[in-house]
Amino acid sequence: MTQQQRQALDELLRHSPLDVGGDIAEQRAIFHEMIASVPLPDDVSAKQDELGGVPVVVVETPNLDPSAVILYLHGGAYALGSAPDSVGLAADVARRVGARAISVNYRLAPEHPFPAAVDDAVAAYRALLDHAVPASRIAFVGESAGGGLVAATLVALGQAGLPQPSSAALFSPWADLTVSGASAVGKATLDPALTPEALRTRARDYLGGQDPATPLASPIFADLTGLPPLLIQVGSHEILLDDAIRLTAHAAEHDIAVELQVWPQVPHVFQSFAAILDDADHALNAAATFINRNWSN
Amino acid sequence: MTQQQRQALDELLRHSPLDVGGDIAEQRAIFHEMIASVPLPDDVSAKQDELGGVPVVVVETPNLDPSAVILYLHGGAYALGSAPDSVGLAADVARRVGARAISVNYRLAPEHPFPAAVDDAVAAYRALLDHAVPASRIAFVGESAGGGLVAATLVALGQAGLPQPSSAALFSPWADLTVSGASAVGKATLDPALTPEALRTRARDYLGGQDPATPLASPIFADLTGLPPLLIQVGSHEILLDDAIRLTAHAAEHDIAVELQVWPQVPHVFQSFAAILDDADHALNAAATFINRNWSN
Repeated sequence: MTQQQRQALDELLRHSPLDVGGDIAEQRAIFHEMIASVPLPDDVSAKQDELGGVPVVVVETPNLDPSAVILYLHGGAYALGSAPDSVGLAADVARRVGARAISVNYRLAPEHPFPAAVDDAVAAYRALLDHAVPASRIAFVGESAGGGLVAATLVALGQAGLPQPSSAALFSPWADLTVSGASAVGKATLDPALTPEALRTRARDYLGGQDPATPLASPIFADLTGLPPLLIQVGSHEILLDDAIRLTAHAAEHDIAVELQVWPQVPHVFQSFAAILDDADHALNAAATFINRNWSN
Repeated sequence: MTQQQRQALDELLRHSPLDVGGDIAEQRAIFHEMIASVPLPDDVSAKQDELGGVPVVVVETPNLDPSAVILYLHGGAYALGSAPDSVGLAADVARRVGARAISVNYRLAPEHPFPAAVDDAVAAYRALLDHAVPASRIAFVGESAGGGLVAATLVALGQAGLPQPSSAALFSPWADLTVSGASAVGKATLDPALTPEALRTRARDYLGGQDPATPLASPIFADLTGLPPLLIQVGSHEILLDDAIRLTAHAAEHDIAVELQVWPQVPHVFQSFAAILDDADHALNAAATFINRNWSN
């Protein structure tokens, strides 16, 4: 069954109209349409709010622990997607953890290049602390560009002298804007969702002329010392496989408690497809277990 | 507390008389003395037996599931250690899994160079299958050289057309006999137990003139296609950190379900020190959870 599910998802993505490297206005609309076509469960509440001057969406499911917060950073190659469009996956995480998720509507490129997204994520986190949420009751979750942004944000928090959150879970993080991992070539034909060219296009938008190896844009080049426990999940059918591996290796080198989970033959952010893929369900449960194990009181 | 435990263990190892690269006869005796000084819990039973012509020690703890078997491959750089000396750690794993462990007393170098150890591990596994234990009820566990040997054995099983076991857990695997990982240099001063020189000495003994990049001696160079789910655990204070990372990366490249868990600031096969190190207890529990999740009936 699992193998059939993986093949069905691969086909679905290969026939998707989404082209991450395509025209921005067009692809933003397509991204939104695809997300909007999947109805939210009735028991999910999503409310627009702001945190530290940054727009956010507060996502709640029943029976949550009011003391804990998941700060959620969506994907979309820094140019597509939005906090409203992230509610489905954020709610899937929030429900399993049993905590509220706050999805940050960070500014997008090319209108707002690096470090706008990092600044917004730091501002939202700082506002949570100002609202008397202890760092030990905050966990970051991010997917794709949002996963790379989580790592960058954690580094920026350290630089700003802020306490680290309890943990962070990164789904298929894009952590190298030089797009130089071996899997950018080695997994190109297997990846049904992303191409190196698309990532390079969006990297140029985000960087606005800055060096793609800038540590806060590409955290595989950052000093990761002091980061909280990290869980990194990735599919083996993605060109970003090596981003996950190199970020894990780099964190290990810096004495971080880091776990890498590689799911075979599944694509980029396969966790989005829990409705049709058992692997997604298992991965989300593993992420929730990890987050809950790392709360402290 | 954890930080104090880590420092105490580091000090203990730095003052240990064990020198993995030293004189074989002398170091075998020291290795045995160190192990023998730690009493086994009263409820552990260890009986000598044989499997496929290979001597083994059958390790049992109370309340085990008689249908499942952990095939255990001890460490000692292919030249030191023995199945009898592995009973303590094998029992710690077996108790948490709730299954019997069978520790394989594979032949050691330099008397018996590569591929004697691989041949013995394959012979023991094949005999288990011949004794009507289903592959789906066998899990491999190995530490240090035994971890590399587990990976090599799984590759050899595939080459021999035998079914793969349910899963394998590798503690600080030595998977690269060329000793060329960046951590061989980068972690040398932090590693209280091993030196690159010691590993190179023992690699020469094991290889008996053969190429250290031979895939069944150094599984980071093997085709890992078809391997069962792998869990790889490693400490960040060891020169073998990169062996764990590269084996994980290589398995991911070959579409294997693989998990890597990096524990910060702990040494080589820290799981041996559950009596004095909370991290060891947590790692062993994580390994048991992984093994139990992967049994099938």
